[in-house]
Amino acid sequence: MFSKVLIANRGEIALRVIRACQELGIQTVAVHSTADSDAMHVRMADESICIGPPSGALSYLNIPAIISACEITGAEAVHPGYGFLSENAQFVQVLEDHGIKFIGPTAEHIRIMGDKITAKDTMRKLGVPCVPGSEGGVDTLEEAYTVSDDMGFPVIVKATAGGGGRGMKLAKTRDDLEDAFHNARSEAKAAFGNDEVYIEKYLTLPRHIEVQVFGDGKGRAVHLGERDCSLQRRHQKVFEEAPGPCITPEMRARIGKTCSDAVADINYAGAGTIEFLYENDEFYFIEMNTRLQVEHPVTEAIFGVDLVKQQIRVASGEEMTFVQDELSIKGHAIEVRINAEKLPNFSPCPGTITHFHAPGGLGVRMDSALYAGYKIPPYYDSLIAKLIVTGTSRQAALARLHRALGELIVDGVDTTIPLFHDLLQEPDIQTGDYDIHWLEKWLEEQNPA
Amino acid sequence: MFSKVLIANRGEIALRVIRACQELGIQTVAVHSTADSDAMHVRMADESICIGPPSGALSYLNIPAIISACEITGAEAVHPGYGFLSENAQFVQVLEDHGIKFIGPTAEHIRIMGDKITAKDTMRKLGVPCVPGSEGGVDTLEEAYTVSDDMGFPVIVKATAGGGGRGMKLAKTRDDLEDAFHNARSEAKAAFGNDEVYIEKYLTLPRHIEVQVFGDGKGRAVHLGERDCSLQRRHQKVFEEAPGPCITPEMRARIGKTCSDAVADINYAGAGTIEFLYENDEFYFIEMNTRLQVEHPVTEAIFGVDLVKQQIRVASGEEMTFVQDELSIKGHAIEVRINAEKLPNFSPCPGTITHFHAPGGLGVRMDSALYAGYKIPPYYDSLIAKLIVTGTSRQAALARLHRALGELIVDGVDTTIPLFHDLLQEPDIQTGDYDIHWLEKWLEEQNPA
Repeated sequence: MFSKVLIANRGEIALRVIRACQELGIQTVAVHSTADSDAMHVRMADESICIGPPSGALSYLNIPAIISACEITGAEAVHPGYGFLSENAQFVQVLEDHGIKFIGPTAEHIRIMGDKITAKDTMRKLGVPCVPGSEGGVDTLEEAYTVSDDMGFPVIVKATAGGGGRGMKLAKTRDDLEDAFHNARSEAKAAFGNDEVYIEKYLTLPRHIEVQVFGDGKGRAVHLGERDCSLQRRHQKVFEEAPGPCITPEMRARIGKTCSDAVADINYAGAGTIEFLYENDEFYFIEMNTRLQVEHPVTEAIFGVDLVKQQIRVASGEEMTFVQDELSIKGHAIEVRINAEKLPNFSPCPGTITHFHAPGGLGVRMDSALYAGYKIPPYYDSLIAKLIVTGTSRQAALARLHRALGELIVDGVDTTIPLFHDLLQEPDIQTGDYDIHWLEKWLEEQNPA
Repeated sequence: MFSKVLIANRGEIALRVIRACQELGIQTVAVHSTADSDAMHVRMADESICIGPPSGALSYLNIPAIISACEITGAEAVHPGYGFLSENAQFVQVLEDHGIKFIGPTAEHIRIMGDKITAKDTMRKLGVPCVPGSEGGVDTLEEAYTVSDDMGFPVIVKATAGGGGRGMKLAKTRDDLEDAFHNARSEAKAAFGNDEVYIEKYLTLPRHIEVQVFGDGKGRAVHLGERDCSLQRRHQKVFEEAPGPCITPEMRARIGKTCSDAVADINYAGAGTIEFLYENDEFYFIEMNTRLQVEHPVTEAIFGVDLVKQQIRVASGEEMTFVQDELSIKGHAIEVRINAEKLPNFSPCPGTITHFHAPGGLGVRMDSALYAGYKIPPYYDSLIAKLIVTGTSRQAALARLHRALGELIVDGVDTTIPLFHDLLQEPDIQTGDYDIHWLEKWLEEQNPA
């Protein structure tokens, strides 16, 4: 087991990893920008090192500074959290060159899954069901028409290097394709420095279902069921639950086995998530995330496992303690993402937390780096807290969420807490009857202006 | 189901019940003394009523005031929490006379178990193993000698009406008996207005093991395993865990069935705890608590159940949803009781909370009525927070407790938090090798003065 781990991240996920390390008896090193000197992850770690100015590119994405921090502190391994360098194959390579262990999969797996076309090819060959679409990149408008006519509209044009909704354009009908193609390319160029796009069949009212997998890097892998993350705004998840309200045990076992077999086949190491669109009882692969997800706690809640500890164990060379037959679901869990944003426009709302009070009691988990007096800097993601509730049933979890939201106090900045109060009043949320477009449609209805 | 419930208590347990009611869609009424106007339970309830001055006897124990509060607000039922009126048969009777439901067992069961001699007789007849001792009260010193000589020293003299360690005196040898007998009687007289005492065999190094039972009032009952609450100071529990480190699955099944059969036999309704001393693989009944225990969350954690919701369900006439075969243990849970007390003497330390920060993350539950700015009044119990952690194993739970205690901030008053930091350093705590005398001996060693 490692004796010291550096956490190359900030905010609640840095805390999440520090907590797991502390529980494993591992010393922790926090890194931080000058904007984060007073951040909770800096306070909670055993050591901390400033790695640059506020800009993420110059600090949390600054590979040489992070390598130096490892060398100065003697950290033997790096946990990347999510975002930042968590899916950066070059980072993994540089760490390896310096004899530092990356807590996550190999650079090769990150590279394969980071390129969406290669990822889809790989998954298709591994038997994972995929969305019909172009074979590889689509370079010309003519090719775009041919491919789209073949599978029928609507289609979606996506940046090969994309993520988070950028470089993604919908063509509902043939008339929309030209604009969608050109806009996706130019957005992709601007966002990722690479204008390659591909085209996929667009499902009308799918749900977003993702399967949590975990491999030992030596050909053994398990799945830990699915999460339904269909409630999204601008391709950002806001409310996630497990198990999926529309997934039967048989479907779970089938898609789960497909996914765990696939990652076992490629000797995948650590935690990964295989994301699907789901419509009419069919799963369509969209991408694999080769890292811990923001929403991993709902899986931890219903399976009673600690995914971060398992990541660390497997990276350190210990045996994975997961056995598929011993993994079973108990209850239902929901996570809501609380952002420092002003409704109804979700405009970022940094500022000073004047009062913070976390909900307590049975079945409530708070993952947050907030504290009273903390000044949320304007430079980073607006996620400030995750509230996770677990109940014996979906209905019990919803009731607990309602109760816990009522106890939560975050004063000093606007947050998205009122959004969840409102959502819980909706019959569709109560019954679990929603798809990936539900939230945006609902938001439009709430605020037609 | 009830539409409105009055909670006849304060502090964290009032919150515990309010939370359960909220999750069941039940309106809540808080009652409070003038000292508790700003208390969290008042803030969280839908309605609140002041029932008297600070003195517990004039407010939280004031039966007419509580009955009036029920009538004014239209509350259909009362949850008593623990302490105060929770085991007061007269209160239950008065509620019944007013057509208000008591969320707990019948007045008769409270009366039987409240009288320790009758309780022991009843339990012995129900097949529950008991500590050898006098048959009923011991009125004279001569009788005390006869009984004690019969079972051998050491013996303990206990007030029939006792609780919380008052009216309890140890006679290690025959020479100690006269003093023990007279002192127990006078202490009993002063504390309970009743000087009747009884005598029991005194076990040398027993553990305190208690079994959680739950009955439907109609002859069905289950057990939810045991809690080990051996770590006590002056008969007050400070650290509780489940399952018990020394209890095997076979022993759990055996004593559990004995206990659930016993309460099924008497048509016991709701939650109850059968407390045992445990030595050399034998259980010796000491008393039954006919209420929710402070330490119930460790049982909830490992069984994944909500005992308070079940109490409310059964009291409202709904069927109990517990089925013994479906109750299984997952993981290990520990609770520590955090008191506003100054170490090393545990002197009460009321005052204003200047900063409060609860630990977060996986496997952590906080039950507390604290908030930043809250003024702890000097009139009541010094328990201010319960920190409950759950892990996949006892070792994992201990590591999580250590981590969570490190995150917890309670500023403004002295607390017993440092006690738990110290306890976690002790090999005996790490291995679970302790008995009911361990803590007091250890405290003496720490502070010989």
